[in-house]
Amino acid sequence: MRCEVIAIGTELLLGQNVDTNSAWIGEQLALAGIDSYYHTRVGDNLARMVNALNIALDRNEAVIVCGGLGPTHDDITREALAEVMGAPLVRDDLLVERIRELFISRGREMPTNNLRQADVPEGASIIPQMPGTAPGLICPVGEKIIYAVPGVPYEMREMVAGTIIPDLQKRAGSVNVIKSRTLRTWGQSESGLAELLEPRIAELNKTDNPTLAFLASGIEGIKVRITAKAQDHATAQRILDEEDARLRAILGELVFGIDQQTMESVVIDQLRERNLTLAVTESITGGLMSARLTAAPYANEVLRGGIMLGSGEPQSYLLGMSALPADPETAARDMALIACRTFQADVGLAVAQATEANEPSARAANKIFLAIAIDGLAQSKLVHLPGRRESVRQFAVINLLNMLRLHLTADGSA
Amino acid sequence: MRCEVIAIGTELLLGQNVDTNSAWIGEQLALAGIDSYYHTRVGDNLARMVNALNIALDRNEAVIVCGGLGPTHDDITREALAEVMGAPLVRDDLLVERIRELFISRGREMPTNNLRQADVPEGASIIPQMPGTAPGLICPVGEKIIYAVPGVPYEMREMVAGTIIPDLQKRAGSVNVIKSRTLRTWGQSESGLAELLEPRIAELNKTDNPTLAFLASGIEGIKVRITAKAQDHATAQRILDEEDARLRAILGELVFGIDQQTMESVVIDQLRERNLTLAVTESITGGLMSARLTAAPYANEVLRGGIMLGSGEPQSYLLGMSALPADPETAARDMALIACRTFQADVGLAVAQATEANEPSARAANKIFLAIAIDGLAQSKLVHLPGRRESVRQFAVINLLNMLRLHLTADGSA
Repeated sequence: MRCEVIAIGTELLLGQNVDTNSAWIGEQLALAGIDSYYHTRVGDNLARMVNALNIALDRNEAVIVCGGLGPTHDDITREALAEVMGAPLVRDDLLVERIRELFISRGREMPTNNLRQADVPEGASIIPQMPGTAPGLICPVGEKIIYAVPGVPYEMREMVAGTIIPDLQKRAGSVNVIKSRTLRTWGQSESGLAELLEPRIAELNKTDNPTLAFLASGIEGIKVRITAKAQDHATAQRILDEEDARLRAILGELVFGIDQQTMESVVIDQLRERNLTLAVTESITGGLMSARLTAAPYANEVLRGGIMLGSGEPQSYLLGMSALPADPETAARDMALIACRTFQADVGLAVAQATEANEPSARAANKIFLAIAIDGLAQSKLVHLPGRRESVRQFAVINLLNMLRLHLTADGSA
Repeated sequence: MRCEVIAIGTELLLGQNVDTNSAWIGEQLALAGIDSYYHTRVGDNLARMVNALNIALDRNEAVIVCGGLGPTHDDITREALAEVMGAPLVRDDLLVERIRELFISRGREMPTNNLRQADVPEGASIIPQMPGTAPGLICPVGEKIIYAVPGVPYEMREMVAGTIIPDLQKRAGSVNVIKSRTLRTWGQSESGLAELLEPRIAELNKTDNPTLAFLASGIEGIKVRITAKAQDHATAQRILDEEDARLRAILGELVFGIDQQTMESVVIDQLRERNLTLAVTESITGGLMSARLTAAPYANEVLRGGIMLGSGEPQSYLLGMSALPADPETAARDMALIACRTFQADVGLAVAQATEANEPSARAANKIFLAIAIDGLAQSKLVHLPGRRESVRQFAVINLLNMLRLHLTADGSA
């Protein structure tokens, strides 16, 4: 089963928006075991959209087209689909009502423009998920299939995850229900994970149900996707749960979460469960840790505050001493304690960079001390991080968050 | 002149990397007045790369292919180009020497693999810019042209800006030299800028030299690109300088920089010139302002430190009072002064969100107070920012940086 992704929008060609939708869809297809050999971007132009769709249909069994389903006159994906299908656009009265109700529920009247969103090529069906006013479409073309989804990321994601991926998997195989779950892991390379899981993968290869797929996600770790096939939902769910437990028994602390969880959302959940508050002192990371934590759900319940030490000498009342110790490891521990004290927080985090004195070579910039303070006690760890300054900053943040996660996990189970 | 962009790499299809190169190239093409109607992504597979190149050549006069020029065995853009050109790959001895010297200059020996990077399809020429070991290629195919550049962003950008864009413009027109400069503006919409510049654009339309192009860049403002054509470099440069001065006379403070400058790099330059140091106190922005400033060049010469106030009550020594004033505008000013005092900085910045008391409706979350303190005096401003929480955070940061820029500019000219 080969599926091409086509992103619609002149703004993508002009570089005004980066096409992150295709990357996300590409990842979902890969995790579901569906091949995707080409991605295309094309502007809001009927002839060129039809051209791109025809080329895609020619070289694939399925196509996902993303964008151009809005209410304005440059939203012409519906027209392009009708032309490719050789079918007229027909206004769907049920859709008109659904869109009108959506406006009413928001206390607004439906603009006439939005009627266009109820136009559907004859023979197409509607994707059940519809979080906005743009309906997603399933358009058969001979033996092949085109799915159309809106470009608004959360609308697109709901439709792709809820309908398109399961439908593609069904078309590729012959079972009734396909469910999957992604284990988020951190701290091991893709080949390292594959080695750990080798015996289990060999076992799974005999039945091919469930299946496992690996996907690297840069500093965010490696994703392991479990996909289960069954005749009914309950059975698929049971297979997923059992495999999840088996993999965790092998991978242990490498697994930090599932599906949409992130390292910071997991850490914040852990702190909330334990009724602990958090504060940070940053140097080289310059506010990145605070910013990343702040953006996570429920951060405001946990995050008390942060200090960013730049090139200056802060007042002694902030440090509780006239200057931080010259040794960066001691400095990192003090910084974690300072965060706790200043913001009256239970847990303090800190990052400090090694100095020439620690590491006379040019590699001092890649040696970072991470520190955690809890209950007035600080501990620290030295890590060697790859790349240049921006890469070191990013890796320092996720390393420290993971260090806190492991600490809280160990504490909770003690 | 139509030019398609093809990005090479299986990791792009799998969503492991987002294809930011195509977006950047698309922007450069748009600013240079070259049409780009399709972008394609294809994996490291010879048959599919050749297929994508042939489709692109069929519907465009020019193609830029990005990636797959590295030394490893999955880097096969050279092979694909040779097949499309119907020409053999020939090892270029001068290139072998150039690559070998690059390794020697880094104190390393050249691995045998890197010899592959000196293989060039017969009839192709080398792009003069070569910041890494991957040579860029110019490949004529009949009347049409394919440019190949490496996927490493800084290598790609040097080649596109230095050779490909001027070459495409020369092919589109008939002059000898084309130079351009991008004015970065902030604080006016695209249509607002167009209105301000309407008389000047009408004048320029008579001669078509220089030309102007607008490009929206989200929260980063609108770019205005000046492109000048001439028989020689000095004349092109003179046309650019004169138009730059004319536009600045019309746009005034809306212009904050040129080309690669960013709002934060401009602010940091201004502070360095004036020998001023900076500190920040953030609340809703949660460290974003610090993080953005820290990532800019020379930030360490200027940025003394920052405080991020979360949900907790910090110690009174930090605030210099037991609690911040309930009125967020007064609080914002105090926060700016606290940043100065704590980090012994000349300039303090702060952001605070309006409360229900200021704005009983749900829109309080979109009302933000921005404050600047200089020499112990604080001033503040209320701004209404669009979107949800993450959008408000981003807009708050750039609004405040722009407010400081305008303040320092006014101060400097007084």
